Amino acid sequence: MTGKINHIGIAVKNLEASMFLYRDVLGMTFEGTEEVNDQRVRVAFFAIGESRIELLEPTTPDSPVAKFLEKNGEGVHHVAYQVADVEAALETLRNTGVRLIDEQPRRGAHGTQIAFLHPKATGGVLTELCQAGDH
Amino acid sequence: MTGKINHIGIAVKNLEASMFLYRDVLGMTFEGTEEVNDQRVRVAFFAIGESRIELLEPTTPDSPVAKFLEKNGEGVHHVAYQVADVEAALETLRNTGVRLIDEQPRRGAHGTQIAFLHPKATGGVLTELCQAGDH
Repeated sequence: MTGKINHIGIAVKNLEASMFLYRDVLGMTFEGTEEVNDQRVRVAFFAIGESRIELLEPTTPDSPVAKFLEKNGEGVHHVAYQVADVEAALETLRNTGVRLIDEQPRRGAHGTQIAFLHPKATGGVLTELCQAGDH
Repeated sequence: MTGKINHIGIAVKNLEASMFLYRDVLGMTFEGTEEVNDQRVRVAFFAIGESRIELLEPTTPDSPVAKFLEKNGEGVHHVAYQVADVEAALETLRNTGVRLIDEQPRRGAHGTQIAFLHPKATGGVLTELCQAGDH
């Protein structure tokens, strides 16, 4: 079902403060930032091989990432795997009895179609399926 | 410095129980298990694109992964990035003032040479540098 790690989403308090590690120390290519209103986060993208690191900074106190930071502090928020067809993947998961957060795909960063599996179904790892966007 | 995500290490209570998701649901290629005595874990490897998912089950109650499970429950334990030369990478990190757990590389799974950065230096994400082994 899955083709590669699309990205690792990392919750941070402040994008600019966290960029130093990924860009300047680990030497990943910084690809810019994007505000994802649906998730109430500002995202900084770093290319690493065929994958990305996405730093997630909440833009509102009620953002899911703000709640994550309150509870856990900074750290890995989710892991996203690329799938060719996210609707077909969700159908397969439903048939396997895997618990989902999103029954239908929604829009992610970079024009992607995404859906989250439930952490209870994935051993505590918030897991995203991600279908590539147009750009 | 870094070339790709080498693997994501996920702490689990029981390898066999957790394999279902990665192998049968997400459809990754199961590559076998290995006991890493130095870390007191049994590891199950799953190929996903150019990277791996590594499930980590503690083999002793004093394993670092056992302590992680006690504190956090199951979830992402560390993220490992591939580097060409881990000793050279550590030298660069020391010069940048990045706090390290390992001042010298040690042996990881699959004959790799690895070193961990300190989570305080990496925004709560335990980060490993990993130089490919002979096999």
